[in-house]
Parts: sequence; C-alpha cells; structure tokens
Amino acid sequence: GLEALKCEDSPDEVLSIVVLGASGDLAKKKIFPVLWTLFRDCLIPNNTRIIGYARSNLEHSDLVERIKGHIKSEDKDKDRLQDFFKRIQYVSGAYDEKSAFENLNEEMNASEDKDKAEKKNRIFYLALPPSVFKPVTKNIRETCWGTRGWNRIIIEKPFGKDAESSAELSDHLGGLFSEKEIYRIDHYLGKEMVQNLFVLRFGNRIFQSMWNRDHIESVQISMKEPFGTQGRGGYFDEFGIIRDVIQNHLIQVLCLVAMEKPPSTEADDIRAEKVKVLTSIKPLELQDTVLGQYVASNIPGNEESFQGYRDDPGVPNDSTTPTFATCKLSIHNERWDGVPFILRCGKALNERKAEVRIQFKSVPGDIFEGDTVRNELVIRLQPNEAVYLKLMNKAPGMSFEPVQCELDLSYNKRFSDVVMPEAYERLILDVVRGSQLHFVRSDELAEAWRIFTPLLHKIERENTPPIPYPFGSRGPPESDEFVAKHGYVYTAYDWTKTSQKKQ
Amino acid sequence: GLEALKCEDSPDEVLSIVVLGASGDLAKKKIFPVLWTLFRDCLIPNNTRIIGYARSNLEHSDLVERIKGHIKSEDKDKDRLQDFFKRIQYVSGAYDEKSAFENLNEEMNASEDKDKAEKKNRIFYLALPPSVFKPVTKNIRETCWGTRGWNRIIIEKPFGKDAESSAELSDHLGGLFSEKEIYRIDHYLGKEMVQNLFVLRFGNRIFQSMWNRDHIESVQISMKEPFGTQGRGGYFDEFGIIRDVIQNHLIQVLCLVAMEKPPSTEADDIRAEKVKVLTSIKPLELQDTVLGQYVASNIPGNEESFQGYRDDPGVPNDSTTPTFATCKLSIHNERWDGVPFILRCGKALNERKAEVRIQFKSVPGDIFEGDTVRNELVIRLQPNEAVYLKLMNKAPGMSFEPVQCELDLSYNKRFSDVVMPEAYERLILDVVRGSQLHFVRSDELAEAWRIFTPLLHKIERENTPPIPYPFGSRGPPESDEFVAKHGYVYTAYDWTKTSQKKQ
Amino acid sequence: GLEALKCEDSPDEVLSIVVLGASGDLAKKKIFPVLWTLFRDCLIPNNTRIIGYARSNLEHSDLVERIKGHIKSEDKDKDRLQDFFKRIQYVSGAYDEKSAFENLNEEMNASEDKDKAEKKNRIFYLALPPSVFKPVTKNIRETCWGTRGWNRIIIEKPFGKDAESSAELSDHLGGLFSEKEIYRIDHYLGKEMVQNLFVLRFGNRIFQSMWNRDHIESVQISMKEPFGTQGRGGYFDEFGIIRDVIQNHLIQVLCLVAMEKPPSTEADDIRAEKVKVLTSIKPLELQDTVLGQYVASNIPGNEESFQGYRDDPGVPNDSTTPTFATCKLSIHNERWDGVPFILRCGKALNERKAEVRIQFKSVPGDIFEGDTVRNELVIRLQPNEAVYLKLMNKAPGMSFEPVQCELDLSYNKRFSDVVMPEAYERLILDVVRGSQLHFVRSDELAEAWRIFTPLLHKIERENTPPIPYPFGSRGPPESDEFVAKHGYVYTAYDWTKTSQKKQ
Amino acid sequence: GLEALKCEDSPDEVLSIVVLGASGDLAKKKIFPVLWTLFRDCLIPNNTRIIGYARSNLEHSDLVERIKGHIKSEDKDKDRLQDFFKRIQYVSGAYDEKSAFENLNEEMNASEDKDKAEKKNRIFYLALPPSVFKPVTKNIRETCWGTRGWNRIIIEKPFGKDAESSAELSDHLGGLFSEKEIYRIDHYLGKEMVQNLFVLRFGNRIFQSMWNRDHIESVQISMKEPFGTQGRGGYFDEFGIIRDVIQNHLIQVLCLVAMEKPPSTEADDIRAEKVKVLTSIKPLELQDTVLGQYVASNIPGNEESFQGYRDDPGVPNDSTTPTFATCKLSIHNERWDGVPFILRCGKALNERKAEVRIQFKSVPGDIFEGDTVRNELVIRLQPNEAVYLKLMNKAPGMSFEPVQCELDLSYNKRFSDVVMPEAYERLILDVVRGSQLHFVRSDELAEAWRIFTPLLHKIERENTPPIPYPFGSRGPPESDEFVAKHGYVYTAYDWTKTSQKKQ
Repeated sequence: GLEALKCEDSPDEVLSIVVLGASGDLAKKKIFPVLWTLFRDCLIPNNTRIIGYARSNLEHSDLVERIKGHIKSEDKDKDRLQDFFKRIQYVSGAYDEKSAFENLNEEMNASEDKDKAEKKNRIFYLALPPSVFKPVTKNIRETCWGTRGWNRIIIEKPFGKDAESSAELSDHLGGLFSEKEIYRIDHYLGKEMVQNLFVLRFGNRIFQSMWNRDHIESVQISMKEPFGTQGRGGYFDEFGIIRDVIQNHLIQVLCLVAMEKPPSTEADDIRAEKVKVLTSIKPLELQDTVLGQYVASNIPGNEESFQGYRDDPGVPNDSTTPTFATCKLSIHNERWDGVPFILRCGKALNERKAEVRIQFKSVPGDIFEGDTVRNELVIRLQPNEAVYLKLMNKAPGMSFEPVQCELDLSYNKRFSDVVMPEAYERLILDVVRGSQLHFVRSDELAEAWRIFTPLLHKIERENTPPIPYPFGSRGPPESDEFVAKHGYVYTAYDWTKTSQKKQ
Repeated sequence: GLEALKCEDSPDEVLSIVVLGASGDLAKKKIFPVLWTLFRDCLIPNNTRIIGYARSNLEHSDLVERIKGHIKSEDKDKDRLQDFFKRIQYVSGAYDEKSAFENLNEEMNASEDKDKAEKKNRIFYLALPPSVFKPVTKNIRETCWGTRGWNRIIIEKPFGKDAESSAELSDHLGGLFSEKEIYRIDHYLGKEMVQNLFVLRFGNRIFQSMWNRDHIESVQISMKEPFGTQGRGGYFDEFGIIRDVIQNHLIQVLCLVAMEKPPSTEADDIRAEKVKVLTSIKPLELQDTVLGQYVASNIPGNEESFQGYRDDPGVPNDSTTPTFATCKLSIHNERWDGVPFILRCGKALNERKAEVRIQFKSVPGDIFEGDTVRNELVIRLQPNEAVYLKLMNKAPGMSFEPVQCELDLSYNKRFSDVVMPEAYERLILDVVRGSQLHFVRSDELAEAWRIFTPLLHKIERENTPPIPYPFGSRGPPESDEFVAKHGYVYTAYDWTKTSQKKQ
Repeated sequence: GLEALKCEDSPDEVLSIVVLGASGDLAKKKIFPVLWTLFRDCLIPNNTRIIGYARSNLEHSDLVERIKGHIKSEDKDKDRLQDFFKRIQYVSGAYDEKSAFENLNEEMNASEDKDKAEKKNRIFYLALPPSVFKPVTKNIRETCWGTRGWNRIIIEKPFGKDAESSAELSDHLGGLFSEKEIYRIDHYLGKEMVQNLFVLRFGNRIFQSMWNRDHIESVQISMKEPFGTQGRGGYFDEFGIIRDVIQNHLIQVLCLVAMEKPPSTEADDIRAEKVKVLTSIKPLELQDTVLGQYVASNIPGNEESFQGYRDDPGVPNDSTTPTFATCKLSIHNERWDGVPFILRCGKALNERKAEVRIQFKSVPGDIFEGDTVRNELVIRLQPNEAVYLKLMNKAPGMSFEPVQCELDLSYNKRFSDVVMPEAYERLILDVVRGSQLHFVRSDELAEAWRIFTPLLHKIERENTPPIPYPFGSRGPPESDEFVAKHGYVYTAYDWTKTSQKKQ
Repeated sequence: GLEALKCEDSPDEVLSIVVLGASGDLAKKKIFPVLWTLFRDCLIPNNTRIIGYARSNLEHSDLVERIKGHIKSEDKDKDRLQDFFKRIQYVSGAYDEKSAFENLNEEMNASEDKDKAEKKNRIFYLALPPSVFKPVTKNIRETCWGTRGWNRIIIEKPFGKDAESSAELSDHLGGLFSEKEIYRIDHYLGKEMVQNLFVLRFGNRIFQSMWNRDHIESVQISMKEPFGTQGRGGYFDEFGIIRDVIQNHLIQVLCLVAMEKPPSTEADDIRAEKVKVLTSIKPLELQDTVLGQYVASNIPGNEESFQGYRDDPGVPNDSTTPTFATCKLSIHNERWDGVPFILRCGKALNERKAEVRIQFKSVPGDIFEGDTVRNELVIRLQPNEAVYLKLMNKAPGMSFEPVQCELDLSYNKRFSDVVMPEAYERLILDVVRGSQLHFVRSDELAEAWRIFTPLLHKIERENTPPIPYPFGSRGPPESDEFVAKHGYVYTAYDWTKTSQKKQ
C-alpha cells in the first residue's frame, strides 16, 4: 500500500534531485510542476533538495519565475509553495566540462552536509537533448556520483534511432552505471490504465482463462491524435510515427497485454517476461504495415488542418516520413500463435483516443444464427479512462433476440472522487522509491529496436511512399481494410452514445 | 424478431381465450389486466374473443367492473379500452357439470361463427384451485375442444404436492391432451433476467469458456422476501417454502444456469437439456439443507414483524413448516461435478431480492498475495434488473494495489427507456404464439419432484424442527455458515453503494 | 459385469427365437452359427427354442444339414452340438398368408407350453428381403405376438433407400410395435473397437479434455475393401457405396466419436445424444464429396481385378453408381464447429482396413521449428484391433531431435488370450438381454437419411459421373487432395512396420 | 541433428582435455572410459589431447594400466584404442602449488604448439574432492587459462552442503570464471528419458493441453535403490539422502516436468524457465516430509541386508541421517497451484527404479460409476526406459465394462537396435560442443538450496529421528500413507506383468 509520508523531514536520509537542463521546456512544464505536486502532497520528504543545472546564467528567482506559470496551486497551498521554492537551488555550468560538474558536486555536498541524516541519496534527471547525453553522463559518473547513499539517473527518449545507435547508447550507459541505477522513462508506463493492465490480467481469474489464442481473435492497440506536427515538423521528420510512438509506447502496451504471468510483482520478474514476449516476435515486414502521411483538408475552424504534413516549414517537400502507421505483429509462442497484434497510430486524425481492444472469437456452433456479434474487451487509456466488455444480452422487453450491450466501468463515474495523477508524477515517485517496474530495461529496448529496425531502414533506404490521408480523417482507408483482413470485425455499435445515455 | 401486429383483425384465424375462474383473484388482478395490455399494444389481434367462465352469476358489466380497478390505462387509451371490454363475454356454469361446458362450447361456437376467418383457435386458461382441475380438464376436453383450429390449455401451480401426486396429475392431463397442448405456468420463466440467462450463456464466447467446474467455485440462486405470510398462512402451511418457491421457481433458474447448450433455440431442444441436467442431480438430503421458520421481531413501523409465522391464525401452533430454506444440490456431470448449487429462499427477511450469483475460483498462483478477491458474476432478477461482474482493478491513483470493482449493466440506466413487460404478459403472449419454451414439460416437472420429494416426506414424517430466525433478519446464521462451508467467500463489498454513487 | 449362465434351463422364463428366412444365406451363415456359439458358451439358457421359418418345404434334418457346414465346433463340443440341433424346429409357410403365421403361433405355443417357466418371451429375427418386410411384420404382430412375456423383433438393413422410403418403413413399424420392441441391426455397432469408442471417450480424463475443436484438426473415419462387387453388382448398383456403408456404418461411428457425453450409460440416453449430434449436421452437398468407380487393373493373381465395376454382369454399362466416396461432414455445435469429419469408403482398394483417425492440431508456437508432426490417435477397427497414439519423442541416443513414435495398444499382443466375439454374437445376445444400446432408433435413422438423401437424389437425377480409379489402388487421387485440403497432414510414417519390429 | 565427425583431425582447432584427479576412481571408472567411447566413435576429433593430472607420481603406462580394466573394447577396436592411449599424457603435481600448474600449462602449450590449428581450446575436468576445489580453480585460472581459444571447466557435486556454503562456492567460481565457462555436472540431466521429458512436453500438442492443475492430480518423481551404503556410509552420513539425490537429481527432474515452455531451445532460455519454476516453490517444511532410515532385515542371499544403516562402520551409532525421504513440494504459480509434487528416494529398498508418474484427475461426472481408475502417464527413467499411459478401455469380448490398459512405448522393444549412450558420454560431448543445456546454472543451484536448506538445518539441529524401515522393503509405510493423503490413488495394476506377456 502507498502511504503518504507525514509532511516532515526524513530523519535517516536526505535526497537531492538534480534536474539537468533546468532551463528547458521539459523541466519547466513537467518536471518542476510534478516535483511541486509530490512535495505538496508530502510524497517526498520535506528535506529534499532540488538542484537545477543548465548552461544559462540564471538567478534562483529567474528559475522560480519560469516555473511558476506552469504550477497549479490553490490559495491554501501558498505557504507550502514558498517552502518548495526554498528547496530549489540553481547551479549553472557547461555540459561538457568536468570542472563545472565538480562545482555541482561541491554544491551538493555542501547542501547535503547541512542535513544530519546519515544517508545522502542523489537523483540525476537528464532533461537534455541527445547531443549532450554522453558527456553529461560521463561527467556525472566521474564527479557527482555520491558515495554516501544511492544514485539514480533518469533519462528521456529518444533512446537511439535504430538497433545500432540504441545499442551504442546502452553500452555507453552500461559502462558507467549498473542497470539498477538507470531509469529510462516511457511516459506511457505511467498511465493509469496501462498500469491497470497488469492487475486486470493477473488479478482476475476470468481473464486468465480466456487470455489466449483459443479465445482471442485479435488485439488492437491504437493511439490517435487530432493534431498534426504543430510546427515541430523538423524534429518529427527525423523520427516518424513508428519511432515516435509505436516502437516505444505501443510496444510497451503490447508487452503488458501479451506477456506471460511473472512469478512475482518484482520489477525484474516482470521485465524479464516483457523481454521474453518480445523475443518471440519476428521483425516487422513492410507487407504487414499500412503507412500514411496527412495532407491538408481545410476543416472550418481548425487552422492546423489547412496545412498538410509537407506544408510544415520544417519538413522537406518530398518527405516520405509516415505520420500514420498500422503494423501487424505476430507472437510466435504457445499463447499467441496466430493472433494478430495490430498497433495503430496516427497524427491529424479524427479524434484523440488511445485504447486496447481485445476481440474474442465468435461463438462456435452459434444457435442464434447470425444474430450474435463478437465479445470485445476495451481498455481505454485516454481520454476518460474506462474498461468495458461488449457482450450479447437479450433485448429487453418482449423480444427473445440477442442485442449488443456492455458491462461498463467508466472511471469518471465509478471513481469520480479520485484525482488521477499524471504519468510523470507516478514515474518520478517510482524513482524516488527505487521501483524500476515502470521503466524500460536495456534488453527490452534492444528487443523493441530489433523488431522495427529492418523496416525503418528499408523505408528510409527506398523512400517508400506513404498513403496520403486528409487531416481529420480516420487515416488511410487501406488501414481499415488491413485490420478487417486480419480478423477484426467492426460493429457500428457506438458505445459512447449508449454510455452517455446513462448519465 | 418480435413484430407488433397492426391494430386490426387477423384475417385468417380467430382466437378465443377462455378464462376459467374468471371471478377469482388471479383472473381479476393478473389475467384480464395482462390481456388488456396485450390488446392495447396490438400484440393480439383485434378480433380476439375473451370469455370469462365461473360459477358466479354475473353480468358482463359486473365482470368489467371487477377488472377495471386493476387495469392501468391512460386517457389516450379510453376508446381502445372500451373496445377491449366489448371483446369480453361472460358465461357462468358449474365446474363439474358436463352440460355447463356444452353450453360454454355453444357460446364459443356462436361467437366464432361470426368471424369469417377459417381457423378457430382456443386457449383455456385454468385460473382455478386444484380441487376442480380434474373435472374441468375432463369437461373441456370432452365438450369444448375445438375442431376447427388448435387448442391450448394453461395451468397454474401447484402441480401436485410430491412426486406421486404430480405424476398422477400429469397422467391425467397426458390422457386428455398432448404435451404440445399443455402450458404449465411458472411465472419465473417469464422474468426478463431469467430469459436473459439463455442469451448470456449461449450468445457470449467469454462466458462459454468459463462456465464450468474448472472456473466456477459455486453458484447461488436466491430469492428473499421482506414480508411474511401476510395472513395466508393457512395455504402456505400446507406447502412450505421448498414447494412454494424452490422446487419450481429456483430449480427452473438452476436448469437455465446449468444446462448444456441445446442444438437449437427450439423449445423442445431446450427443455430436453433442462431435463437432462435434472436427471444428473441426486435427491436432496437433510444434511444438505438449512431450514428456518421466522419468529416475531417487533421492527418499529413494520406491523407484520410483530407476528411470527406460528402466530398467523391459519398456522398450527406447533407447525414445523419451513419459511426459509437453503439447499445444496450437486450435479453429477462433466461440467459441474463438485460445484455446489445453493438454492436459498426465505420469507420475512431483510430485503426483497432475487439473484443468481456465480462465484469464480480464486486466481491460482496469485502473485498479489492475498489482495485479490474472487470474481463474481451477478444476475439480479429483481428488483432493478442488472448484470454485473465483480473484478479486480488497480486502485486508481498512485497505488499499485488491486481493489474490487465491477463491470456493470444496470437496466434502469442502460435501458431507461424500455418498459419491462410483466412475466405474465410474456407468457400469455407465448401461449398465443405457440412457443412452449418458457413452460414446464411433464418430464421436467417429474424430475424436479424426484429431487425434493424424499426430503419433503422425511421432514414431514419426522417433524424436523426448523431453526427460528427473527422477522427482518438474513435468516438463520447457520445458513451463512453452511454457504461459507460450501466454498462461497462473502466480501463485505457493497455494490449498490458504489453503484449509486455513479448516478 | 457379464456373467456366463450356468449351462442349464432358465427356471423363470422360456425364450423362443424365430428365424424368418431360415433357408437363406444370412440365416445359414450368420444367425444359426451365432446362436450355436451363444448356446455352446451357455450365454443363452438351455431351454431356449429356435424356430426356423421359411417358404421352402424342409425337414428338420435338411435345415440342420444346411447349417452344419457353417458351424465351427471341436470334438469336445459334440454332445452339446447335438443338444443344440434338438432345440431347433422348422416351420414352413408363406410370408404373406396370415394362416401360415397362425400355424407358426400354434407351434410356438405348443412348444412353450411344454416348459413350466411362467414367462414366455419371443424374438423374431427377420432375415428377409425388403419385399416381404411389411406383410411379415403385420402378420407377426397380428398372430404371433406373445401375451405371456415380452416380444422383440430384429430387422436388418436396408432400412429404406432415402428419407422418404425409410420414414414410410419406420411409420409402418411404429404402427405395429413400440420402439422398445424394435432392434435394427447395424453390425458395425457390434464391433469390438466401435463399442470401445464409448469407453475410451468417457472413461478417460485425458481424452475428455482434448476431444474438441480447440485441439482436434480433423477426424477421418474410413473403411477400405480390397475386393469389388464379387458378382453381386446387381444388388449393389441399386444402392451404391454411400447407402451401403457410409449412411449407416460410418455415420454410426461418427456419432460415437462426436456425440456429447450422455448422463448415463442407458441405451436411450446414449441414443438421444447420437440423434442430437446428427441434428447438428447439415445435409451433405456434392462439393463436399469425391465420388469414384473402379475400373479394371489386371493385378497378376487377382482375377477380380481384371474386371471393372461396369464389367460386372449385373451392372449397367453406363452405371454412375459410386463404389468409392469421400464425404466431408461439418457439425455445427460448440464442440465441433469447423472440424472436418471425413468419411471415406471404397471397394476394390489396395487393402482391407477400417479405422478412425483423430488428428490433433499442430503445436502452437512450436520451438522445434518444423521438426514436429501432429499427434494422431488411431482406433483401428479391423483387421487387428488396436489403439495407438502417434507422438513426438526425443530420438534415442546422442541426438536431441524429436522423432515420431507411438504409444501402442495392439489387441493381438496385449489381449492375445481373448477370443474376440463376432459382431453378430454380441448383438443377438444384446437382444436376448434387452439392451438396445447397439441398435439404431427410428429418429437416428431418420436423421442419417436427412443428411444423405439430397445428395443421393441429386447424383441419381443428374447421373453425376464418378471418377474412375484402378482396382487395387488407393481410390481417386482427388480424394487424397480433398482430404489434404481439409487439414489432414499425411505423414509417410509407417506404424505397422515399426510395430512389427517389436514382436 | 547430430552428425558424427569423420575420424580425423580437426583442421581449425585443437582441444585439450585436462582431467584433474586423474588417479582417482571417478576418472578411472567414468571419465577416461567415456572419453574412449567418444574417441572411438569419432565424436571428438583425432587430434584431441587428454592430460591426466594428479599428485601421484605415475608413468603414462601406469595410468593406461589403471584405465584399461574399465574400458570396454572389442577386438576390432584394438588399433583405435592404441591411438587413444597415445593421445593421453600424464602430468603430476600438487593441487595447491601455483608452480605445479605453471608446469601443467607449459606442457599443454608445448603439446598445443605441435598442432597447426589456429584455435587452442581447453577443458578442465575437476574430478577432485571438495577440499581442493578452491586452490585448484584459482591455480587453473591464474596459470592455465588459455588465451588462444575458449576454456571450459567441469565440476562435480557436491556443490556445497547448504545455501550458504553453495553460495560461497558459486561466488568463488563466479569471481574466476564466467557462467558460460562453468559446467556443473548433474548426471541425471544426461539420462535419455530425462532429456526426453523436454521433447515429450513441448513437441506434443496432446500433452501441452493437459499439463496443468486442471487435469493433473499429482506428480511423483521417485528413485529407488535396492542396496544400502555399501560400506561408504562415512561419506553418506555427512550428506544424507536429501542432499545426495533429492536436492540435485530429483529437483532437476521436477524442473523439467514443471517449467513453463521456453521461447526457444537455447540453453539459457531453458535454464531461465527452470529457475523461474524453482522461485515459485516455498522452502520445504518438516510436516511435508517422511524421513526414514533402514535397519537390518536378513534377506536370505543378500548379505548387505544383514546390516542396518547404523551398522555401517563409518556411521555413528546414533546417526539420524535419513536414507529415505518423501517430500511434498508445492509450486505457487498458475499452472501448478494445488498440485502436490512428491519427490521420493531411498536406499535399501525392494527394487531399482526411477520414474516420473503423472496422475491425472478422475473423470468428472463419471458415468461408469466407480469402474474407472485414473489415467496415468509414466516415464520410466531406469531400468528399461519407457513411456506408458494408463487408460480405460472396454474389456475385450462380450462385456461392456471398462478395464485398465496401457498405451505403451517400451524402448527395448521399440528401439531394440539403438545403443543407449551413458549419461556421462552425452554430458562430456555437450561440454565439447559448448551446450550448457544439461548443466546446472548458479542461480538454479541457489534456488534448489533455498528450498531444502531450512529443513536440512532443522533436522540436523534437532536430530529429528527418521522412521526405521527394513532393508528390502518399500520404505516406511508412513510414506505410502503420506502419498495417498496427497491425492495419489494407487492401483494394484501391474503393468510390467501385462507388458511382459506381450513379448
């Protein structure tokens, strides 16, 4: 169980959290606000130190000013917020100069020495571009690695661009830190419903018995965004949708859906099972994908829709980078042999939605002769977290016919009083607590890259043209056909409507 | 699919519905009102004839007057209601005189002759006490059995008091009518959620695979009434709770829960499977029961609670008739071997509720070490029809612990616009349509009596004393212990509360 | 358990067995010899009477003489054989004259009266051509039906030629006798391994769990004869291989392989399940068959092979009657949906063999990458009864590779001391004992005809040409292709060879 | 597939096999004879070097002489044997002197230098008592570790005496060698039928589906020896039967029976699954064991039986060391929760036998009312390797009753022409080939000790008295009762008899 600490100092240990890249967007918009929330709610001890580090020459007050605009706080939290700001220090320095890090280390030592707790722990959060990863990690290891407690390092994607570059990065990190010290963030692993997948699967007898190829026809994991590159096409064009979303976020969800039951809830038992299921997946081939790129569609009131992907100033005019992809993966093991796992992701689509859709097989020897449709378990990750199970029910009233219905667990109704924490909040707390469960291990990362790298290289080498689709559509119609071909039966049934009726 | 007729005459056939016992309570309160609803909604043709028959010397207007108080009709139905009353005739006569029935037949002939439809069909509804069953059925068969269309006969319980008397009655009926002509009413079979059991089980792949001893720990079928005998203790004392509810209603529900999948949705295929599962049940023994009898408890504001069962003027002071019973039945077949089916019913309990509760087995090799509770599928028959599935979910928020939740299908929310027909309405319409699916066949009846008769004889012969329990309680605590002993794990989890929160 | 009677009279009842058609081949070659075996082994009481009835004017000694040549008896049985012949009477008479049957009845009465046992039971065995079925059965019912004990009637195929003619015959019989009195012989039901199917399936937990569409890929039931029509082509041409073997023998085997578990071992519970599985089979269509007709092939030393089917003097030169058929049936129920049941039968093939072959699905997610072949359970009905299970085993020795092997139960090795009774022996004994388990009920028969009649009518109406295949071959190659298309993987593995090595 | 090399030199690499402890029993009786067999059969290349090392001052001829008596060779192998002896060198030296190993290294270098193959590989086989393990391994690592090819080290049990001492040893080895270089021998893993377990389980669909708690009632793994300590009681008394057989051999068999399917046949994938299943086993407790110690029983003709265990001169008079143990282990995972795994081993019992016995659950809803017994799959490891499956079959003949039979695969019949290699032969060849599949990894070893150490410490601390049982008996009757209590139903059925009848 998770127990909130009392709002007081930890007597035994003191924690320093170093945010490298403190002046950047990620730090300002995500990291500091999340640290504030954790501090406010007393999930981290009062005597925690937060050290911002960046090249810019800033005063403490400058940093605080930058953060303030992104922090939500109510009036009652005013004093607490002042306390929080007092916990923050700022140290400026270059990323590639050892002496600058020696200075940082001295500042930390000095700060730690003020605390009488015996153990001095350090977290280094790298909110930095890939270009400085290597010197920074080397400098941290050589100069700032604490000797009076544990050290942990948090890194953000991208973790390389393909199997080779990722392996090189992992080798670099592996040469400096032990696996236990490295926390690779995939923020999807911090989502409520992604974490819930584990409990749903292994805490419920009913799902246990049907979670396999005998009963499941197909699995779909999809993420749809209603907006395009929003001006950041330059960055995106280097990566494309597969690297940006599928190879990391969606494949992580796939692992949780498909992995065998681990012998315990220990992070490494779980991560071993995730790796195992990945090893049973063959590299993705072009014929098992549908790739798309959005074009302008002029939706009234939606200015972004007036521009197609290639119209983004940062994107080359002849770019073949996909902004949409549907990929079918096959897992060659006893549980999943023959079941298509369809990962689907796109920008500039008709809605914002991320969900997992488990479609069960048809009823064998059906006696309702065509009147039944397949059961489906849907786990909606966002928006409006929900689990619902589509099933056949007698049409209420005088009829004896089956109609489609749903057993529903909508979080906004069932848990209307719970404030759902942000992914980052959970993950940073996990680092503080030393739980690696929701972080990506080197071998996981390597396996994920092994699956996608050949395809990525091929489409880049051959400039495989993606199928154009209009901004605001469902993506290329070829994708729906592809999904249907792989056994998914789409029913026009609109759950949200019937569900809204209930409220 | 069920299609409402247009509100017009049937051109090909005319139907006469004879209500025998037309002046009695059942006719007045149930049968005529239901006929009205069917007529109003054009579910029976306009040219249907309704003939009341009883000993009393009544005028048409007397009968209409008696019925009126029990009919719900809105202003807009005024004309239609007048039409309905015009469809009703009244014929008086004795139940044991052949000549009286010859008279009835002549009246029917005369009425039918007025209709130019070729086919003349007749339904005889026996709303009569058991004492006149035999002469009436004999007279109907000999004098009123139509020769210009089909004939059907509806009978109400009690269908005997034990295996022997029931067999005698069945033999009597079997000598007069074919099985296709006999409609034995068990009004539980007309309930929405009882009928839904069939669709839920056989229309859903997910339930198919878990509906067996490998996955189900126990099945409970219970019906709780919050009131006592309400002054009709004299009648009740002759029967007791087992005959009154368990041997008929609850055992019918058990059949639907436990039967194998029939080869079609044909009535006789389904009834054959119901018989088959009954044949696999051994006669109930005393050690597999808990019997109770309620005593006074003086609940403020509940006048009936001031009297115990034996205080009812119609009940002997030393009566040992049970008003509460919990029975464990075992089904000796491949699907259910070892799974306890617990039927539980009582009067004067703490609430009104009828439900089926399928408790699944615990998760084997559970890695949440004691934090998971068993999945349970609940089908609530009344009040407030619902299907819900209790499952474990990650506690929303920062915790990673499993908590109990439910996937829910509450009819009043999901189908708030559907008016649920009464059991009788469905059943009478079934008779009109010739569907015997929801009626009890002779062999089913015989098997049900075979299971309960030895116990009934034993407790009556030996005056086995029931355990006293206070009016308004959950029944004898021994019942809860008995249920727990047979593998049911009760969790304090209160679904209604969490469910209400949603609204 | 089956206990041999002591070799003595039954004190309580006397049994008369009337063999109608006593002078014919069936009587001479099968019925009397089997009666002798039963008598010799004291499986029927000493005071049993056997009455031969036929048109021919024969003396007792003539009948005995005819029988003698077909009876196997050792020297030690000499006296017993003389006793047996003394139990036989002969009565001659026409089949269509009531008076002749009155005479038969008197003879029986007289004989029965000599026995002091109170109960006088009668079995009528109709070893007669279809042409006299009706008058004979009528006459038996009207004049010879005993009133001092039970009566049973045994009939042989053909039971009609299609759904209509069979129904007519069943109606005729049903008008005279109750179902309990009719014993339709299908001698396949008397075979050791056919009867064993029931025990194998329902007495073994291991088979129970894998006997369904989740685990079984296909079922094949085949019967191969190495000889042609052997001069009886005239009779055969009227029927063809489907009527002669598939619609009766093989479909009965299918029923035993495919039926659900009955609630008991009672004949009617089992027969109800057989009917049920038949009702789930759609009528066979031409595209689901391969039909063949053998042609001459001149196999040295096999004189019959010099003639093709149409060369048989009794067969029309342009006959399109199939002598070979492969049929795929589909069972539309929960257990078997999607599993092909392939029935295959032919004359003039390369070997004599009848067997059931259950091929299991491939190992999902196989880690031996192509080195495993499918498991198969084979039940060999004839010759040399055996059950064997093909499975993968590590190749013995230094290798770690899988090789195909078999778990084997060969009757000639395991039960070398048991003399296997003939099918007829079992079946006649069953009639004596009143067990209808191994006899075909009217509704079974009707369902079997329902499946095959449309196809039979179609190919006869359209003179669908069968594929020619050489005498002594495996049948048309199209059949093997058809079977392969429906999921059967043939492995060259020769079990008999490896099996013989063992001896 | 395994291909024999041609009998020639390997052109690319030369292999040196160093047998440390060359003058001891193990070397003489097992290692050199096995090396001879591999050499004779050309499974190792002709240019392999074999270096014996020991303290004794021996000549090459002395060593050859010692080995000769234990080598089986036919006349035709005479020349080849001479070649073999020429491949052997002998080097003498102390185990704890670095200089001696430097000398050994020089000798090896010199010998290797004579070969023109580029790669020089070395295997070090430690046939030594535990007392010298540490210095020898240290010396090997520091002086003899080759730099021109791979190095592998083979070690023999005991691998410690409990969790702590074993961990210490593993740490020592882990400090010197990588896991890839260490080959811990458990000769049970070299047995034909132990290796076959893997293929049987994962190459057969039929076993896949029934290999779990839904279908299996209990698993028994037993090893029975008909002789006592045979004078080596001194050594044995230090260890006892649990350390000697159960903690290593039988637990390894358990792993193969119980582990999940690995994603491939790679050694480390398989060993990871073995570790995983071990982690799901709780430490053994005293109440889950039956411990025994044999006493004299004076079996005529069996001299050893005149002495009980404590009569062995090397055994203390009050020894409580068990010579027999039955242990029940429980595997807390989804597949095995609730299934008892019973490991049983004893000295001085009534027979020599090692087998795995999988008893399936009873048929649920059995319709043969008590006439069926449970299916059982038996894998006999020794003597006479066999797989057989006990099942119910119709009793052949006129009866319709089920009788117990078996589907049988007896190696001496089915594979009568295959010479089964010895365990050591397979294992040494595996080392040469670099396959670690059949060797015990450090983490496996640690988990196995974790399970048994608490019990071992407890019974040693408390001197728990074992139950005496007579030499030549089945062990203590308490063991059979214990096994019966845990769900094993013993049937008197004697398979060997019926099986022998077949020959």
